[in-house]
Amino acid sequence: MYQAPTSDMLFVMKELAGLDEIAALPGCEDATPETVEAVLHEAAKLCGEVIAPLNEAGDRDPSRWVAENGGTVHATPGFAEAFRQYVEGGWQGVQHPQEYEGQGLPKLVGTPCVEMLNAANLSFALCPLLTDGAIEALLTAGSDAQKQLFVPKLISGEWTGTMNLTEPQAGSDLAAVRTRAEPQGDGTYKLFGTKIFITWGEHDMAENIVHLVLARTPDAPEGVKGISLFIVPKFLVDENGALGARNDVHCVSIEHKLGIKASPTAVLQYGDHGGAIGQLIGEENRGLEYMFIMMNAARFAVGMQGVAIADRAYQKALAYAKERVQSRPVDGSAKAAATIIHHPDVRRMLGTMRALTEGARALAYVAAGESDRAHHEPDAEARERHRARYEYLVPIVKGWSTELSVDVTSLGVQVHGGMGFIEETGAAQFYRDARILPIYEGTTAIQANDLIGRKTLRDGGAAAKALIDDMGATVQALGAQDGAAFEWMQRHLAAGAKAFASAVDFVLANAKNDPNAVFAGSVPYLKLAGIVLCGWQMARAMLASQRLMNDDPKFHGAKIATAQCYAQQVLPQAVALEAAIVSAKGGEGVLALSEDQF
Amino acid sequence: MYQAPTSDMLFVMKELAGLDEIAALPGCEDATPETVEAVLHEAAKLCGEVIAPLNEAGDRDPSRWVAENGGTVHATPGFAEAFRQYVEGGWQGVQHPQEYEGQGLPKLVGTPCVEMLNAANLSFALCPLLTDGAIEALLTAGSDAQKQLFVPKLISGEWTGTMNLTEPQAGSDLAAVRTRAEPQGDGTYKLFGTKIFITWGEHDMAENIVHLVLARTPDAPEGVKGISLFIVPKFLVDENGALGARNDVHCVSIEHKLGIKASPTAVLQYGDHGGAIGQLIGEENRGLEYMFIMMNAARFAVGMQGVAIADRAYQKALAYAKERVQSRPVDGSAKAAATIIHHPDVRRMLGTMRALTEGARALAYVAAGESDRAHHEPDAEARERHRARYEYLVPIVKGWSTELSVDVTSLGVQVHGGMGFIEETGAAQFYRDARILPIYEGTTAIQANDLIGRKTLRDGGAAAKALIDDMGATVQALGAQDGAAFEWMQRHLAAGAKAFASAVDFVLANAKNDPNAVFAGSVPYLKLAGIVLCGWQMARAMLASQRLMNDDPKFHGAKIATAQCYAQQVLPQAVALEAAIVSAKGGEGVLALSEDQF
Repeated sequence: MYQAPTSDMLFVMKELAGLDEIAALPGCEDATPETVEAVLHEAAKLCGEVIAPLNEAGDRDPSRWVAENGGTVHATPGFAEAFRQYVEGGWQGVQHPQEYEGQGLPKLVGTPCVEMLNAANLSFALCPLLTDGAIEALLTAGSDAQKQLFVPKLISGEWTGTMNLTEPQAGSDLAAVRTRAEPQGDGTYKLFGTKIFITWGEHDMAENIVHLVLARTPDAPEGVKGISLFIVPKFLVDENGALGARNDVHCVSIEHKLGIKASPTAVLQYGDHGGAIGQLIGEENRGLEYMFIMMNAARFAVGMQGVAIADRAYQKALAYAKERVQSRPVDGSAKAAATIIHHPDVRRMLGTMRALTEGARALAYVAAGESDRAHHEPDAEARERHRARYEYLVPIVKGWSTELSVDVTSLGVQVHGGMGFIEETGAAQFYRDARILPIYEGTTAIQANDLIGRKTLRDGGAAAKALIDDMGATVQALGAQDGAAFEWMQRHLAAGAKAFASAVDFVLANAKNDPNAVFAGSVPYLKLAGIVLCGWQMARAMLASQRLMNDDPKFHGAKIATAQCYAQQVLPQAVALEAAIVSAKGGEGVLALSEDQF
Repeated sequence: MYQAPTSDMLFVMKELAGLDEIAALPGCEDATPETVEAVLHEAAKLCGEVIAPLNEAGDRDPSRWVAENGGTVHATPGFAEAFRQYVEGGWQGVQHPQEYEGQGLPKLVGTPCVEMLNAANLSFALCPLLTDGAIEALLTAGSDAQKQLFVPKLISGEWTGTMNLTEPQAGSDLAAVRTRAEPQGDGTYKLFGTKIFITWGEHDMAENIVHLVLARTPDAPEGVKGISLFIVPKFLVDENGALGARNDVHCVSIEHKLGIKASPTAVLQYGDHGGAIGQLIGEENRGLEYMFIMMNAARFAVGMQGVAIADRAYQKALAYAKERVQSRPVDGSAKAAATIIHHPDVRRMLGTMRALTEGARALAYVAAGESDRAHHEPDAEARERHRARYEYLVPIVKGWSTELSVDVTSLGVQVHGGMGFIEETGAAQFYRDARILPIYEGTTAIQANDLIGRKTLRDGGAAAKALIDDMGATVQALGAQDGAAFEWMQRHLAAGAKAFASAVDFVLANAKNDPNAVFAGSVPYLKLAGIVLCGWQMARAMLASQRLMNDDPKFHGAKIATAQCYAQQVLPQAVALEAAIVSAKGGEGVLALSEDQF
């Protein structure tokens, strides 16, 4: 069972991410309060009633590969019909332009829809997630003809999209891509090579699959500067979008995975029978640049997957804790055994799960709002400011939300005790499913490299410092409130912001002369940033809730208590991470162990 | 592949746990240096060559239940033969008395053998682990006749043992046990009830299974004071140990689990066909007391499972990191892609895995040595002192080693990147297998309750404070050394010990007037104790390594670097946990959320 947390979603959108301001921007006018609420409630209905009930079935009865037609994948029974309902409801197009049959709503409105879909069914949601990525790449770099031909079909769900980056020798290191693309003289190319880990790379839920593929042309330079991006459809299409011959791309196997088992992870063989016909997107050798645009969107979406599965695991653990009777309360308040939510440690686990999840949701939605402002603010300088903030936040949303999803789903198993280890209970599936999130679309280390290299060093720490300044204002505002919750938050947020600033200074000061030391602290830096920035959002949330208390005392009271839990259980880790980065000179101890000492 | 870390094991035994002193105690004389080394090397050979290679097979082809004979379980092919080799080598009897055909070696010597067996194959090792528990219970509370009849057969492996505590409504809460035992007037009882989660509760590796079962006699008081312990063999046995009729205990199903799949987790039905015949152990209504003796041993052993699987995951990740080539080093030291162990974040992950594992191993072995001294010191007061220390450490060894095993196996997946998520790689199995460890034999919360209630409050914090005093001496000794590694360790160990002391004071001061606040901080207190006490052992290790450097510069240099890594990456978390316990008044924020606000 999954019930979308629409109250918290709407609260975060309005009070923290500035929905009203964003709806007032040119191009965002459709995001009226009525529309937004209607969208969220419809999405909640579809996800809760149609898509969530298929989640366990997908785990028990995963996508299945059979040899026919050179490799065919059958999705879990029920998935194709649910996908039909999803696309017919227009959900694939929520964030995409109206001129291509999308709904043209802001990213801030699309984001809770993405969260719900992923909370309902992570494996299912990956198909639309990858299709979104393909649409973004086409809109960014495709020709008008390519956009007209492919984007409406992807939005309608007649076709789905994939991203083909990884090869056996080229995982995090895309410089090692070897797939070849040979120009045919007619504007098309023939592709030859093997791509692995291709999510929904083959399936039977749509009539065609549009593969976006990184490959090298014959005279391309070595390394990342010689990679181009190609469209390679499973079935060739004519200029009107009618399907033609089967293209020479075949799924030779799918992986046997720890989790997200319903989502087929394909090995795709290009060109084993004469060459897979593809067309270039944009210019040759700029493929990685286009892919990064798509990846930024996909990375944000994977961060939302982390929030989503954390919330799903929380909901399940909470329901169990309210139902399972075991042992008397330690305070002697009852003579008989009580539901386990009465036990302080269960309360600590649930409170931590909730605080981490709400903090991550808030930061992600705020980032989505920054993306909308970066696109729609009338003022160019404002657009640039918001773009910089969004881009700083993307690796944190991706890295931190996914890392915490592993911890939260693990706590979810723990709340269930022995039953958590039994597969039929369902808590274990979330734990298994979540484990891919800090790996794909760039591991946490890759996110952390991005955070240091492109997002901290390149602007001399400007984006980071602007955030620190804004946090300072929140710390001040907390001081004007009364009560233990505000006191604790002020104390730990101030300490966290100081630790964050100190880590930023360390990165800036040492990146050039001691890169190993800085990069040994890269993931701790990302986690520190995540913990503190999410804590900041929880602080802003409690200030808003204090102001709005009379509207809904139960909701806002819980928000303040959850923020206090965040302040006391989560925020203190910032200082420990600072020690691991700064005091430790970026992991001197780690680097002290030479390779042969390991 | 598993290679037992015998060098580290012997170092810890000799330099930290005091093997030489223990071998000099009456009753421990057989533990000569030659014998100990021979035992470890033989165990390493058996575990590495025979038992470890079956680990993946057990996951792929788990124990299988079939309906025949009222429920039969077939172990994974190869397990029965390996078990035969294990028991024929005398390994089941390493720690058990010679008068019952055991080898009578100290627990300190048995402990590395337990670690190796579990690292090799967690599922397999559970069968001997539970048999050890049954032997301990029989030796503690059984009559002479019971000991003579059952213990030699359990040590020889002709029979195996189980612990039957859990029932559907009685998990952590044994007060809720309902299984009935009706006296038959001839000294035997007939048992009726359902037991769940019975590890190796049914299998075909031995000719008989000796179930130790908690049940209530007809007039027993309610709650934990009315529980008795019974021996219920699968096949009845005559006074000479010859097998008779099949007893009325049947395995009606086994669980479908997240991990340790080769280990059958049985639902056992007692008395569906007239009553399962059992005999009482010790006195009526003292069953829980006997079970606790057995559980203390089993809890320690489960802690060793945590160390074991952490080490196995580390070894696998390390091998991959030395082999997988991906991306150029960030410091520009090479023009081509390098093995990933050159990347600072991979180094951080491996260093953290190693530091956590070595720290946990050291603390567990030191605890094992305390147990030996508690049994064999000639002086009664010394025995009592060591008993108190051992008992304080058991919930920490169990709770902290198993919690960290979840983190370490998760890092093991992460080091493998996308390959880590593919089941055939094997890293995912460790992640799945480890997840049960913080749950069974008492969840981490149950360990933390024990740490607070029986181990901290009951002696007014004496055992804890004695540890803090000893840590103070180590902090002093660190100050006498030169070098960054010693400086960092001194700083962070001193801060950790202070945080630990402050948590102990908080527990002592508030348990009576605010039990909820104290118990909301119980697991953080356990983790804090684990982090600091393992850090203390790493500090002692680096002092020993400094002294012994010339004997083996590579080993001792690595030890000092690993300790530095522990000091910088792990120890700083102690202060964050202190904040969550003490400053936060035991999780005020957690408790601020009322049940209906969740």
